[in-house]
Amino acid sequence: MAAEQVLIGGKWRDAEHNETFQAENPTRKQTLPEQYPISSWSDVDQALAASATAFQEMRQMAVEKLELFLNRFAELLDDNKQAICELANLESGLPISPRLLDVEMPRTINQLRLAAAAAVDGSWRAATIDTKSGIRSYFAGIGPVAVFGPNNFPLAFNGAAGGDFAAAIAAGNPVIVKANPAQPGTTRELVKLAQQAANESGLPSATVQLIYHMANEDGLKFVADHRLGAIGFTGSKTAGLKLKEAADKVGKPIYLEMSSVNPVVILPGALSERGEAIATEFQTSCLMAAGQFCTNPGLVILLDDDQTAKFIESSKKAFMQAPSGTLLTKGVEAGLTQNLKVLIDAGADVEVSGSGEGSSQGYTCPNTLLSTTAEKFLATSEVFQTEAFGNCSLIVKAKNLAEICAVIDSLEGNLTGTIYSDTAGGDDPAYDQVADHLRQKVGRLIDDKMPTGVAVSIAMNHGGPFPATGHPGFTSVGIPASIHRFAALQCFDNVRPNRLPRELQDESPNGKTWRLIDGAWTQDSIG
Amino acid sequence: MAAEQVLIGGKWRDAEHNETFQAENPTRKQTLPEQYPISSWSDVDQALAASATAFQEMRQMAVEKLELFLNRFAELLDDNKQAICELANLESGLPISPRLLDVEMPRTINQLRLAAAAAVDGSWRAATIDTKSGIRSYFAGIGPVAVFGPNNFPLAFNGAAGGDFAAAIAAGNPVIVKANPAQPGTTRELVKLAQQAANESGLPSATVQLIYHMANEDGLKFVADHRLGAIGFTGSKTAGLKLKEAADKVGKPIYLEMSSVNPVVILPGALSERGEAIATEFQTSCLMAAGQFCTNPGLVILLDDDQTAKFIESSKKAFMQAPSGTLLTKGVEAGLTQNLKVLIDAGADVEVSGSGEGSSQGYTCPNTLLSTTAEKFLATSEVFQTEAFGNCSLIVKAKNLAEICAVIDSLEGNLTGTIYSDTAGGDDPAYDQVADHLRQKVGRLIDDKMPTGVAVSIAMNHGGPFPATGHPGFTSVGIPASIHRFAALQCFDNVRPNRLPRELQDESPNGKTWRLIDGAWTQDSIG
Repeated sequence: MAAEQVLIGGKWRDAEHNETFQAENPTRKQTLPEQYPISSWSDVDQALAASATAFQEMRQMAVEKLELFLNRFAELLDDNKQAICELANLESGLPISPRLLDVEMPRTINQLRLAAAAAVDGSWRAATIDTKSGIRSYFAGIGPVAVFGPNNFPLAFNGAAGGDFAAAIAAGNPVIVKANPAQPGTTRELVKLAQQAANESGLPSATVQLIYHMANEDGLKFVADHRLGAIGFTGSKTAGLKLKEAADKVGKPIYLEMSSVNPVVILPGALSERGEAIATEFQTSCLMAAGQFCTNPGLVILLDDDQTAKFIESSKKAFMQAPSGTLLTKGVEAGLTQNLKVLIDAGADVEVSGSGEGSSQGYTCPNTLLSTTAEKFLATSEVFQTEAFGNCSLIVKAKNLAEICAVIDSLEGNLTGTIYSDTAGGDDPAYDQVADHLRQKVGRLIDDKMPTGVAVSIAMNHGGPFPATGHPGFTSVGIPASIHRFAALQCFDNVRPNRLPRELQDESPNGKTWRLIDGAWTQDSIG
Repeated sequence: MAAEQVLIGGKWRDAEHNETFQAENPTRKQTLPEQYPISSWSDVDQALAASATAFQEMRQMAVEKLELFLNRFAELLDDNKQAICELANLESGLPISPRLLDVEMPRTINQLRLAAAAAVDGSWRAATIDTKSGIRSYFAGIGPVAVFGPNNFPLAFNGAAGGDFAAAIAAGNPVIVKANPAQPGTTRELVKLAQQAANESGLPSATVQLIYHMANEDGLKFVADHRLGAIGFTGSKTAGLKLKEAADKVGKPIYLEMSSVNPVVILPGALSERGEAIATEFQTSCLMAAGQFCTNPGLVILLDDDQTAKFIESSKKAFMQAPSGTLLTKGVEAGLTQNLKVLIDAGADVEVSGSGEGSSQGYTCPNTLLSTTAEKFLATSEVFQTEAFGNCSLIVKAKNLAEICAVIDSLEGNLTGTIYSDTAGGDDPAYDQVADHLRQKVGRLIDDKMPTGVAVSIAMNHGGPFPATGHPGFTSVGIPASIHRFAALQCFDNVRPNRLPRELQDESPNGKTWRLIDGAWTQDSIG
């Protein structure tokens, strides 16, 4: 069977390649028939060259074309959602309903529409005008963006349709999609629709390009290439750190979302008030989609008392009764098994390792709940922070509040941190103390709910201190903030009025753009 | 003579050190008497520990205290400006008038006052509120900041009073000052006043700490320390890249301003219209302060024609007649001499190497104007971009516009790029072409004036693509934008109203803070 074609410079063509790979159906542990090429450097090189040309054209283009493109792409996704979700289900094992068709596809479409609105609105550019000094600045596209999508969101974080893609395009950058090897078919179908939308909207032919895979060394060369503006990567810490090192060396902005155990602190008042309910929330959040969320509650910290014992008992039952879900790939299964072993070898006790009726027949792992004491955790805190990506969590039992804070202080950066407290105010002093410590370690601080939901909101921060991400000042979810990652600050000093970009001229580009003029935000024109 | 004391944890005390260094008076090439310690790791370690404690206190502190501190420090600088400028002159050779006392000190004081206003105003935090989803976010201090100041602005970029210092404090972070070894005495005096201001304002005792110098390996350990939030560095590319590598490895945000040749393109219409005037501007900008500005016009690109020959003749005369200024240090003299040799060895022709009456008797170098052709430049573009920091510039003569654009395309990132064009519009088509290429390579695009002036403006971008800086999205000059470098994005999801930071509560903190509420910027409270 001939290998699938790559999309380079607007043309679907055979890849330059020596090797191929195949995807798997994780539900049946069956290799899927299509062969996908592992591109040689020359494919990557040509994609980079074409993207540089596309970027040059896009710089001269009206932003209305970006709006047109993103909205048309959203529409095409909506028209083809059934077929795409079926393919995504085949390649990921994630259910069509209630997940792919009901939640993830609508979210993906919504993100593209929000990006379309943001692109044409222009407020994301933070146009800043100092009328007295004649200096004006704004954010503008940074150049071609390479997007490496993860395996756990075949649509909403896909390199060809997800949040990074939408943000990179909204800033006016072409995108080179590096497919996640677990979902090459889904990615191909998304790219086909993106290309159709780009053609219909009059965008350059290399606005979206697709490469399925490349050798590791070519990946390092790719992210360090001078023609690239920036990189968006969501995936494993191991791969992310290698790409980061290569990109950092040449000062190429790389935005990584890598790993997070998402600590959840449950204070005693909350436990006594609604321990059972919290145990249910915990089980649901931890086991949903077999726990394969960036914001899975992987670390639960409580005081070591009778209430906690009860909470653990309830959770154990819930974990035992719940079916274990399908893991995305053989690799995820192997990784989870391996990392559970690391935690157990470090001294964690196994509270549960089991699952209920209806468990997956594909790649899977028993629902696992581990526990340890804060003392043990603190002794080898680095090991105990090992992210076991999947349907498991580690409970840490602390002697007192000081130990809870010490455990938090020992943590690396995380995407989220959650605190449950009682509604009567009894936990408030403890909350204040815990929150001050936790705030420094996480991008998003949450009260009284599990961290798995990541709303698409202008105020969302899906980011956090290293190694959750590569830089604590940026978010990968939430438009328009996420667009900033793929933009450079451009200043115009004494530049003649007719030469200024539309967003920096005296007259407002469209009466809607928020601009900071002489220190005040306004939608008005100057004068 | 006992070595000078370091300021750690609020106490001036003897440094833990084995070695010392001395500063020099570059005007007389005389070693100054004071011995300054090269701190051992234990000094750095203690400073880091104290700064972590200070940061904890500062997080709970009202922002009004930061305002008080920054304004009081500004006032103390004003009260002591004569003595400080005399010391800065002794250690840098920069003239008290018209430079240190007349320009740089007022700029430094102004920056601190702007930072004070920004800290209390709070608009820099970009507080973003989504009332429907209950998600709110803003920027908050990132943690203790290490500031490495450069040698070429003993006051306005000093680690203890300059732009990075002001921005780091305004965000609510303590600062560990790493003095520039060329100006340890000036830095010490600034730190003394900063400490006095901090005490009087009730700030933690370790808000400002001072270390003069440390071994290179300790510097690498310092910037990678987990207790540090971020690093600001202005200085050489060699040192900057080493620190960057160490910080990047552990995901520590490091903001570097390293090197820039600041290309200036002079189009033919401008040359025929006002060639003589531009030659004068060029000479003034290039030789001011012996050319020791980050934004010195080090590369001038023109068409190879009679007008350019005339421009070069005028510039030659001007360079020959101007006195050569004092270079900041012996190291700057050696570096300039060395890098001029690199350019000449690469094939650059020496148009002038000389200077007029009143030239410096200290560290100095003849005013130097080199020239080459675009063809030669393009053949070894990397070598020809060697920054020869000081009173020199390289003229590149191109056959046509396409060659000018090719030269620009071959450049690394720069802080600034300038285009001179005629006022009648004859250069406009050429301008558009050149500007599109140049825009991608620089942080600040300038029309019709030399790049050396860096106004303190809300719209300024003193930044640019690598290796001018480490990230093209940030500026080191211009408040409040510069503050963002030392801040992390913090999101609050479902957090109870009374627990939110003041800036994210429904009620506006002071009626002045600009906040983005449900997509609209406003100074109003909610509801």
